Amino acid sequence: MAQTLQTDAPRAVDQILDNYRSDNPGVRANLYRLLMTGRLAGTGKLVILPVDQGFEHGPARSFAVNPAGYDPAYHAQLAVDAGCNAYAAPYGFIQTVAHDFAGRIPLILKVNNHDVLFDEKDPSPAQTSAVKDALRLGCAAIGFTIYPGSSQWKGMYEQLRALAEEARDNGLAVVVWSYPRGSGLSKEGETAIDVVAYATQIAAQLGAHIIKVKLPTDHLEQDAAKKVYLAESIPISTAAERVKHVVQSAFDGKRIVVFSGGGKKGEDAIFDEARAIRDGGGNGSIIGRNSFQRPKADAVKFLNKVMDIYAGKK
Amino acid sequence: MAQTLQTDAPRAVDQILDNYRSDNPGVRANLYRLLMTGRLAGTGKLVILPVDQGFEHGPARSFAVNPAGYDPAYHAQLAVDAGCNAYAAPYGFIQTVAHDFAGRIPLILKVNNHDVLFDEKDPSPAQTSAVKDALRLGCAAIGFTIYPGSSQWKGMYEQLRALAEEARDNGLAVVVWSYPRGSGLSKEGETAIDVVAYATQIAAQLGAHIIKVKLPTDHLEQDAAKKVYLAESIPISTAAERVKHVVQSAFDGKRIVVFSGGGKKGEDAIFDEARAIRDGGGNGSIIGRNSFQRPKADAVKFLNKVMDIYAGKK
Amino acid sequence: MAQTLQTDAPRAVDQILDNYRSDNPGVRANLYRLLMTGRLAGTGKLVILPVDQGFEHGPARSFAVNPAGYDPAYHAQLAVDAGCNAYAAPYGFIQTVAHDFAGRIPLILKVNNHDVLFDEKDPSPAQTSAVKDALRLGCAAIGFTIYPGSSQWKGMYEQLRALAEEARDNGLAVVVWSYPRGSGLSKEGETAIDVVAYATQIAAQLGAHIIKVKLPTDHLEQDAAKKVYLAESIPISTAAERVKHVVQSAFDGKRIVVFSGGGKKGEDAIFDEARAIRDGGGNGSIIGRNSFQRPKADAVKFLNKVMDIYAGKK
Amino acid sequence: MAQTLQTDAPRAVDQILDNYRSDNPGVRANLYRLLMTGRLAGTGKLVILPVDQGFEHGPARSFAVNPAGYDPAYHAQLAVDAGCNAYAAPYGFIQTVAHDFAGRIPLILKVNNHDVLFDEKDPSPAQTSAVKDALRLGCAAIGFTIYPGSSQWKGMYEQLRALAEEARDNGLAVVVWSYPRGSGLSKEGETAIDVVAYATQIAAQLGAHIIKVKLPTDHLEQDAAKKVYLAESIPISTAAERVKHVVQSAFDGKRIVVFSGGGKKGEDAIFDEARAIRDGGGNGSIIGRNSFQRPKADAVKFLNKVMDIYAGKK
Amino acid sequence: MAQTLQTDAPRAVDQILDNYRSDNPGVRANLYRLLMTGRLAGTGKLVILPVDQGFEHGPARSFAVNPAGYDPAYHAQLAVDAGCNAYAAPYGFIQTVAHDFAGRIPLILKVNNHDVLFDEKDPSPAQTSAVKDALRLGCAAIGFTIYPGSSQWKGMYEQLRALAEEARDNGLAVVVWSYPRGSGLSKEGETAIDVVAYATQIAAQLGAHIIKVKLPTDHLEQDAAKKVYLAESIPISTAAERVKHVVQSAFDGKRIVVFSGGGKKGEDAIFDEARAIRDGGGNGSIIGRNSFQRPKADAVKFLNKVMDIYAGKK
Repeated sequence: MAQTLQTDAPRAVDQILDNYRSDNPGVRANLYRLLMTGRLAGTGKLVILPVDQGFEHGPARSFAVNPAGYDPAYHAQLAVDAGCNAYAAPYGFIQTVAHDFAGRIPLILKVNNHDVLFDEKDPSPAQTSAVKDALRLGCAAIGFTIYPGSSQWKGMYEQLRALAEEARDNGLAVVVWSYPRGSGLSKEGETAIDVVAYATQIAAQLGAHIIKVKLPTDHLEQDAAKKVYLAESIPISTAAERVKHVVQSAFDGKRIVVFSGGGKKGEDAIFDEARAIRDGGGNGSIIGRNSFQRPKADAVKFLNKVMDIYAGKK
Repeated sequence: MAQTLQTDAPRAVDQILDNYRSDNPGVRANLYRLLMTGRLAGTGKLVILPVDQGFEHGPARSFAVNPAGYDPAYHAQLAVDAGCNAYAAPYGFIQTVAHDFAGRIPLILKVNNHDVLFDEKDPSPAQTSAVKDALRLGCAAIGFTIYPGSSQWKGMYEQLRALAEEARDNGLAVVVWSYPRGSGLSKEGETAIDVVAYATQIAAQLGAHIIKVKLPTDHLEQDAAKKVYLAESIPISTAAERVKHVVQSAFDGKRIVVFSGGGKKGEDAIFDEARAIRDGGGNGSIIGRNSFQRPKADAVKFLNKVMDIYAGKK
Repeated sequence: MAQTLQTDAPRAVDQILDNYRSDNPGVRANLYRLLMTGRLAGTGKLVILPVDQGFEHGPARSFAVNPAGYDPAYHAQLAVDAGCNAYAAPYGFIQTVAHDFAGRIPLILKVNNHDVLFDEKDPSPAQTSAVKDALRLGCAAIGFTIYPGSSQWKGMYEQLRALAEEARDNGLAVVVWSYPRGSGLSKEGETAIDVVAYATQIAAQLGAHIIKVKLPTDHLEQDAAKKVYLAESIPISTAAERVKHVVQSAFDGKRIVVFSGGGKKGEDAIFDEARAIRDGGGNGSIIGRNSFQRPKADAVKFLNKVMDIYAGKK
Repeated sequence: MAQTLQTDAPRAVDQILDNYRSDNPGVRANLYRLLMTGRLAGTGKLVILPVDQGFEHGPARSFAVNPAGYDPAYHAQLAVDAGCNAYAAPYGFIQTVAHDFAGRIPLILKVNNHDVLFDEKDPSPAQTSAVKDALRLGCAAIGFTIYPGSSQWKGMYEQLRALAEEARDNGLAVVVWSYPRGSGLSKEGETAIDVVAYATQIAAQLGAHIIKVKLPTDHLEQDAAKKVYLAESIPISTAAERVKHVVQSAFDGKRIVVFSGGGKKGEDAIFDEARAIRDGGGNGSIIGRNSFQRPKADAVKFLNKVMDIYAGKK
Repeated sequence: MAQTLQTDAPRAVDQILDNYRSDNPGVRANLYRLLMTGRLAGTGKLVILPVDQGFEHGPARSFAVNPAGYDPAYHAQLAVDAGCNAYAAPYGFIQTVAHDFAGRIPLILKVNNHDVLFDEKDPSPAQTSAVKDALRLGCAAIGFTIYPGSSQWKGMYEQLRALAEEARDNGLAVVVWSYPRGSGLSKEGETAIDVVAYATQIAAQLGAHIIKVKLPTDHLEQDAAKKVYLAESIPISTAAERVKHVVQSAFDGKRIVVFSGGGKKGEDAIFDEARAIRDGGGNGSIIGRNSFQRPKADAVKFLNKVMDIYAGKK
């Protein structure tokens, strides 16, 4: 195996970067920036603020409860103030704030999106921005959503392939939201452990540097997989065990995996989830609605507590 | 926040341009031209004359009532004479007049269009001209229609993305007609406040510099949204309140929003609408049929009165 | 308005070219060639010989009645001998004769075609040649058919847009055959006056320099349009009135409109049609089957009589 | 008309090449090579060996009866030994032998193919190689199959158009297999005289230098065509008459037409067919299964007899 | 025929390379590397380790039985330790190990993949990486799966054509997984001898340098083919006879054919298969699940025994 480089970077970051040693210096630099920004800098853990709900769910559903959030600058500032590792959003939100925030915090340009004014059974997001935009706006990475299980899977994977190639060639990291969905799956199956582990593997095989999945349940969706989980007694009864299995599915932990927070819920539930992610070896969380749908001071306090958990302090 | 530049431009225009500070000087120059042309120059308000009805509805339905309008030069001259900020039309109309009018008034090339000889439930306009045409013909912006709610949404958003990128790279502004329509929505839902606010957000996220939507009703179309409007008691009972909510959905007013006049109606109704748009913080109107479907002298008088309302004189 | 240039060209041609003053010198040169060739040179009127029936209907249906027409050279020579303004045909026919005829008469390369071996309800022709071919073969223009009213309309308009852009950039004129057809229309509706006027407008908006439509009937197809025709009492009872309305729909006569002859019929009917086109302000005829499906001497005599009508001699 | 050049080439070849005088010297050189190779060199007649059945029908159905044919070199050598004008095959077969045979005999790269493992009612072949391959492998021409009458016709014609353009630009000749097939036609209609003549015309209009069709029957498929065949008393009762009509449909004989041999049958039947093709003015045959599905010595003898018929010796 | 070159390479390798004499030196160099690596170097036989099951079946189904296999480095090391000729995997797996393993063993980048979260009747894999990736990662070849018999066949063949062209132009070899599947075939038909032989021929015609098929059964699927197998008494009763027929279908053995191991089964069954492949003239095996789903030491021992069979030692 290649020898770990002697650098000033914390050991946790060096160890992670070592898994990306086939990547070019540009990509590695941006992964380094993501890992060395904010309160979790140097720990190998990440808490990222994503705000694509304006596009995905509509503005009122996203921002009415805390109207400061209608302004794109609010979120970028929240990410900075809370000490997040990065801020992710669609083109319009990123474009509006890039002039002021690029450089201050790593920006992730979410290059495809989906709205619910036409809400199909087998969704495929539209490409809404480009690698060229990410470069012009000073971003560290692009973000892309795939829906494994949708009949539109082929188109999404091929669009990701092309964009990921262009991103890498330009030194940008690639973050993949891998969300199983569509007529190949039951509703419960979308968060089944076998399906989420599979979705993780697919994202890794497609070249994701960072994989974002939902925290899985212990449901088993696919018969052929179920047989193996039972035969091999793969432990999936606790959230931490399931996280561990997902991390294993990310090339035995050689790819960064972060978990999404989902809809707004109680703080304690989220803290428990963070502990499970940490204990299972996950790399952190992407937390949107649970952050920006509360007053800013609360949000900063809340996010800092999540970060403390990842830092092993809670 | 970035500091407002010290220029000769009126303060209202400077404040608006400050929201576009991530844009390149070429785009900013064209936004400046749009805001500094005509009777409303310097007020931050716009009244734009659009004439795409010949394509969208047919020539007789559009021009028979005032046959001077069959001639493309009529409309460009009307826009100049009435002191509009800009004139928008499809390729043929713009191409015929550009030799004489480019420079005299900002031209907006409407690069996609739809006719009703085949009128589908889930429409998607055809691209009918290109950014290259807009540049060659001396235009200040391109215009593009999307129909959120149509099953063809993905194709439209991706076509807009590509054209908007090319437009921006060449210093042109991007005006998006965001008209919800298609099998995802009821007829009433096309102008529902939740849907129009959502359509505004989508256009902004897709990179529109100027967003054109219809004046919404107080209908609430989507269940998940309705819940939030009620829970948060978002005020939507008056036209001005609804305009305010739409403006909020345009990145808290950081994107220019203008409202369409719709079919021909009584003058007073339109004046009332203009006051509501003004009072709700909207940036103005796009008025087509209510302008060119009356004799020219009447139209100029009528448009001037609308402008006076925006200028705060009525 | 721009001042008419002082040239040697006849006043009628200068007046027409003045409507194309946004076009580049290359396009204007080819329009000039089309207007200054043959017996109608300088009159502002055109009679064009089109022979695409071998492709559109099959060889025997087209040429068996006058077998000399199997040979592509026959038609080019007929067009020259009869003093037509131009000769239009698909790739194979043009390519075979270009070596000898390019320069002697303006050639129009019909770049899309449709056959009836598979005859669908919603047709869309195939692109069968390219702008590059037209240039290599010394043509003055490309010809392109659209079928407004077909569910395939978007694909056709976008293909025309791209080819028209390339043609213009290379100094070629663009002739659009605008033939309403498809599931959006009844059979009678294909030649209804409202539909033909609309098809004319669409072609003009898409950038056609010369528009070819069928001579319309007084049928009114679309309800919304019918209302306006009745309310505004648009005169459509005579063929000349209908031609006038179509010409008005071509940007108030700022675009050249020629009318198709249709299937073979009695000479007098065609002469009457030509008079109606002339009296309504149309620019001429495209006459195929009525020319090449009779012996050559007859055809020349027949075409000359049509030309005399346009020249105002009959 | 252009004057025939004074060259050393036999008069028959000069006369044919004169019909291609709009083509560039590169294409003319390859047509010359095809007409000046083998036992029929200089006669204006061609016998071409095509071997695409391995792809189109499967290897055992094609080669089991004479297993030497599994080896691609067998066929190229057979074509040379029998004195054929050219050898045509898909990429794999041509690529394997090109190192040794390019230059020794004109090679025709069949750039699209279809297999019967999925055998659809409305077929469209897949492009399986490219013009660039033909150039690299020293070929004289590309071959392309279209199925007029298939609902997929538009895609095939447009693919042919693009490939033919590229071929011509690079000096390669274009051979079109025009095989009516698909839901627009009855089974009997695939070889009906009206349909085959129409398919010939389509190929010629699409720019084929050499057209390959099946020998037609006297069936009349299309009602509108039938009417004309009867009204004009077009002679179609003998095979020679039908060949003559097909040749007429190939621009009055200005394009080379060869006829396919079809499935294996008795020698005498094929000799009779060759005589009919010769007497009707056809340019020759493409004979595959009837050649390579018999022992080599027999095949050479058989092909030589066919060639003698074309040379007028039998 | 071309004369065999005098080189240091073993005679078996020279003989194989001679069949690729139309290929460029870059492709030949990579075929040479594949044939001169590992324990079978110089024998003309190959055993390749493929690991795409993580993508194709999911991570737990693939790796839970031997969890070391979650780590991509495990497989590359296994291929080296067992003395395989090459290691094949999708982008993510190859990318993770290329930094360390490129050069040590020929890498085959599997550029398309399919998962079973949406499992359609007529599958078509998604392109998941590119020729450019293979070059950057130091690979010797690309791998591509086609499913003849699927209604999506045309798209797959055309995607392969384009990628194979680019691969060859860059000196990479092309390995085609030709797996009949889809609504054109019964389940039993997927491994029928007539179908597998046909799939072999198709891959060879499409330009595969190395063809991978499943070991066929003696079932005959297609009626037209069945008739020929019976009429010509093609021997297909033993596995070795069927391999011989498949090799014959690969251009009479002029293309390398390797056979897939299929699902996990008893060792003796696999050894028998290897003997049949060897005796029938096949070039070797691609063995995935039967290798990496057992402990490493066992796997090495097992693979070595298979190699010994190919080397003629067992």
